[in-house]
Amino acid sequence: MSATRYAYLGPEGTFTEVALRTLPEAATRELVPMVSVPAALDAVRGGEAAAALVPIENSVEGGITATIDELASGEPLMIYREVLLSISFALLVRPGTKLSDIKTVTAHPAAQPQVRNWMATHLTDALWESAASNADGARLVQEGRYDAAFAGGFAAAKYGLEPLVTEIHDAVNAQTRFVLVGRPARPAAPTGADKTSVVLWLGDDHPGALLELLQEFAVRGVNLMLIQSRPTGAGIGNYCFAVDAEGHISDRRVGEALMGLKRICPNVRFLGSYPRAGVAAEDVRALRPGTSDAEFVAAADWLARSQDGRA
Amino acid sequence: MSATRYAYLGPEGTFTEVALRTLPEAATRELVPMVSVPAALDAVRGGEAAAALVPIENSVEGGITATIDELASGEPLMIYREVLLSISFALLVRPGTKLSDIKTVTAHPAAQPQVRNWMATHLTDALWESAASNADGARLVQEGRYDAAFAGGFAAAKYGLEPLVTEIHDAVNAQTRFVLVGRPARPAAPTGADKTSVVLWLGDDHPGALLELLQEFAVRGVNLMLIQSRPTGAGIGNYCFAVDAEGHISDRRVGEALMGLKRICPNVRFLGSYPRAGVAAEDVRALRPGTSDAEFVAAADWLARSQDGRA
Amino acid sequence: MSATRYAYLGPEGTFTEVALRTLPEAATRELVPMVSVPAALDAVRGGEAAAALVPIENSVEGGITATIDELASGEPLMIYREVLLSISFALLVRPGTKLSDIKTVTAHPAAQPQVRNWMATHLTDALWESAASNADGARLVQEGRYDAAFAGGFAAAKYGLEPLVTEIHDAVNAQTRFVLVGRPARPAAPTGADKTSVVLWLGDDHPGALLELLQEFAVRGVNLMLIQSRPTGAGIGNYCFAVDAEGHISDRRVGEALMGLKRICPNVRFLGSYPRAGVAAEDVRALRPGTSDAEFVAAADWLARSQDGRA
Amino acid sequence: MSATRYAYLGPEGTFTEVALRTLPEAATRELVPMVSVPAALDAVRGGEAAAALVPIENSVEGGITATIDELASGEPLMIYREVLLSISFALLVRPGTKLSDIKTVTAHPAAQPQVRNWMATHLTDALWESAASNADGARLVQEGRYDAAFAGGFAAAKYGLEPLVTEIHDAVNAQTRFVLVGRPARPAAPTGADKTSVVLWLGDDHPGALLELLQEFAVRGVNLMLIQSRPTGAGIGNYCFAVDAEGHISDRRVGEALMGLKRICPNVRFLGSYPRAGVAAEDVRALRPGTSDAEFVAAADWLARSQDGRA
Repeated sequence: MSATRYAYLGPEGTFTEVALRTLPEAATRELVPMVSVPAALDAVRGGEAAAALVPIENSVEGGITATIDELASGEPLMIYREVLLSISFALLVRPGTKLSDIKTVTAHPAAQPQVRNWMATHLTDALWESAASNADGARLVQEGRYDAAFAGGFAAAKYGLEPLVTEIHDAVNAQTRFVLVGRPARPAAPTGADKTSVVLWLGDDHPGALLELLQEFAVRGVNLMLIQSRPTGAGIGNYCFAVDAEGHISDRRVGEALMGLKRICPNVRFLGSYPRAGVAAEDVRALRPGTSDAEFVAAADWLARSQDGRA
Repeated sequence: MSATRYAYLGPEGTFTEVALRTLPEAATRELVPMVSVPAALDAVRGGEAAAALVPIENSVEGGITATIDELASGEPLMIYREVLLSISFALLVRPGTKLSDIKTVTAHPAAQPQVRNWMATHLTDALWESAASNADGARLVQEGRYDAAFAGGFAAAKYGLEPLVTEIHDAVNAQTRFVLVGRPARPAAPTGADKTSVVLWLGDDHPGALLELLQEFAVRGVNLMLIQSRPTGAGIGNYCFAVDAEGHISDRRVGEALMGLKRICPNVRFLGSYPRAGVAAEDVRALRPGTSDAEFVAAADWLARSQDGRA
Repeated sequence: MSATRYAYLGPEGTFTEVALRTLPEAATRELVPMVSVPAALDAVRGGEAAAALVPIENSVEGGITATIDELASGEPLMIYREVLLSISFALLVRPGTKLSDIKTVTAHPAAQPQVRNWMATHLTDALWESAASNADGARLVQEGRYDAAFAGGFAAAKYGLEPLVTEIHDAVNAQTRFVLVGRPARPAAPTGADKTSVVLWLGDDHPGALLELLQEFAVRGVNLMLIQSRPTGAGIGNYCFAVDAEGHISDRRVGEALMGLKRICPNVRFLGSYPRAGVAAEDVRALRPGTSDAEFVAAADWLARSQDGRA
Repeated sequence: MSATRYAYLGPEGTFTEVALRTLPEAATRELVPMVSVPAALDAVRGGEAAAALVPIENSVEGGITATIDELASGEPLMIYREVLLSISFALLVRPGTKLSDIKTVTAHPAAQPQVRNWMATHLTDALWESAASNADGARLVQEGRYDAAFAGGFAAAKYGLEPLVTEIHDAVNAQTRFVLVGRPARPAAPTGADKTSVVLWLGDDHPGALLELLQEFAVRGVNLMLIQSRPTGAGIGNYCFAVDAEGHISDRRVGEALMGLKRICPNVRFLGSYPRAGVAAEDVRALRPGTSDAEFVAAADWLARSQDGRA
């Protein structure tokens, strides 16, 4: 294992690399592009990398299912950080290409819903072909296979291309969320603006199981930020749920909710507690009365006194 | 204080005395009748009695509000035992009195709903006058003030009366539940068929507060056996709730529910955990999966491991 | 039947009579005191009275169980009005009696909790004896049986007594709520500040039945004002619930909640929709978004269009 | 518009075509392959096709987000049928190719998670390249660009290939669910084994909004079969939910739940009520007591009588 090596979903020149470079420690790590999310995570599992940065959610496509499924299965991993990155595309072409010259355009399939409307207006006749990554698409333009590629503007120089159009994004607030994943260890201390990720399997097929699951959070005042159903592989209609909740596993309300879920779900996988990107402690929504750590401690003291006949 | 003295709601010769004598330890205690529930409980508070037996619920009248209100306010007390007694009345008369001779009949007001239908059939013309207790009614018949009294058959001999009719009870399963109340101390160990009594004050006037309160029990699989609203004295519409729940305060599910209530209610008064009368451990309803002590412990272990990165 | 006769819980000179006289129409009715709540209600059932005024809740004692039980059983009746009356007691004595002369004091048992603290301070040695009504207590003082009676100050003149002390009430906001009950008919039109009363029987003994019942209200945004458990007569632990909810049966949210309850409860008894005493339409708590009649109608229109493929 | 033309997600020779041909009416329709799900659905919107068959869920990948997003936005469409198809892959090669000859392999990206484990065992060194569809992958093998393609065995003959290995599927019960989509119209009558699809937008960002949404279904006894979160395009963390519920819009319980959702959600899109594939009416889970149409009708009758004072 190399503590100095960070894997990421490659190739070089993608948004993932840009996201990774926003982390201070990236400056002192060897950054290794991997061909796929599973490959990046397996590098961590196998000890070839200390951590891996992979996309997990974007504002256009939703949860990145490959990442969620990899985290939900196989040898356990843990999320330590998240990075939010605003996404906009540049249309990269070989120098001299004009918009009217473009007959074929390429990019990773995930880029398509983010540029579809723009293409419908500006590249009505161009044929779309998918590439393995946006960077690979740029490389294929460099090689002459396609006329243009959608990619981050930062990729232009690397492939000898030029950005013909920039700031292309169909949705106004296009963002992608990335997570830094490592082997399981004690989570970092709470910052006051934390997030806890878990995967929850519903027990039997009884109607209302999801409702019960949500009530374990609600009764302890734990707010949910994301709930994403994923098939369990046991056939149509069998789902587990990836959930992001506000708060840290060391917060009493979160811990009690997780224990409640552990008791009613056949399986719960804790994926980590980590600081929320772009949110300061003072911006966090106020706790519901009765759910602070101090109130949990006071209630536990009262219970102990009651059990002793001293309440 | 006298550890050998038990107070009870008197006078002698009432159902409460009969209920008290069903307790094995009653044989070795001095049994002291008191004029009212508050007097009996104050004897305990003041140390003149080690415990007091008072009625708390009957199958015709519901919760005995004087008892609930006394337990909910004032210096804290704790319930240690409950006693269930089947109630039926005898019509006590002076020897020689015939049914057709009866023009006036008396008893404690609580007896009235239990004999109303019988009276409507058999004593259509008799006038009802309330007495301070059933035993006092019998005494007034002895003194000649009234012609007949409804009371327990056991009271006849004491007042020189005879039971003209016995087994009078409008409802089929007429029962009264009594509780043995003492100063707060560590509750007896759980028996597997236990009950926990609390009084809960609703916080503010927000609609749904009662629903939230019930959900604190429900989410931990704690079943309720009784819920009785009582005015708080702060005006029409302001209520607290006396609640009997299945289980013992030392059961994890009950303890966690109580802590949850402690956090959301402005006040919670723990009234005790004690064996359920007439129910053996093997007759208790099965726990909901995920709510046994073993499952609570396993979930807590899992949480601790998760917090250490070892789950 | 006499449309001009109103029964009330007598005797004359009680708070109930005062409450009844606050109704404008009382001036043109024959007001008939009855010896008990059942007698007053049976006068309505039997057609001897057009309506009856009886107490149903007081801020010290809570629900008046005799009234609730009578409304919950027997031939159906309906509530048409409610009256709120602030309660304070006068200590009535024969002219010339001084506080220090008082050795015995009487009143209806319901008065006791409202004057208990006052007595503990000012009449420490006086003996309490219960009377059939406060007015009857005053009569017994007049006759010389007792030295003093707690009653409404208005009762003094009638019995030749004088109020030695007035404005006695242990609780600050002591109030009693009375209801005007008649035979079932179409409820009065909604005023915007209405209340709906029902009695609900829980189906089987399944834990959580009360929670489900409350959710039928909650999911339609119907707030509860009172919930009172009453034994069904089927033995200890078997309860029905008298519930007062905000709103009128002709409000869509209330109607839908009632239908939901009708489907899950083995029995529902509608006791009436009527104006809230002392609350104007503009003081009613704002409806939860999505629960107004207009929103119900819009949703029904949308559903109909959806079923036609035109949504 | 052509009532005789059905579009489907092409190209020819994919699982979607096989699924479409299981519909009896397909024999009498012109079946037109389209290059994408949006293209297939737009053919319906534009009137070039009467209906389109597209995949919506598979047991490995979960909800097909392109389809869900297309149905959730744009001009409304409606689902009329669903088709379930068991999925297994064949490894198609040019005649004579042996397993050890395969250096490159291709298929649509959705196939990858279904064959990943098999590849890891049997084609450890082969390089994966994504194709626009499985059928297109087969074509590229025919043209010599790649050595092998994963596709349905039925595609072999069309492209002059042979199935070297068949019945490849990592998950045991690999299935894909397809829906037949048309322009909005009155849904077919209920069969007793129906499903209703809707898309629900959560109102504001208040925690517990999802819980409230689920309670609208739960309180009416409507079971959910699928819940899939999808980003709304308004930024990270903003989701709508595609939900499949048991029952038909003309079932009272379903209609009332939908109206409840319509009132609390800023937007609800009804996607149709249609027969459940592979489930007969007699195999449907029993209704919760109190939720049948007969019970809804009886409750409505009771409400009407109550409003008239005749209950």
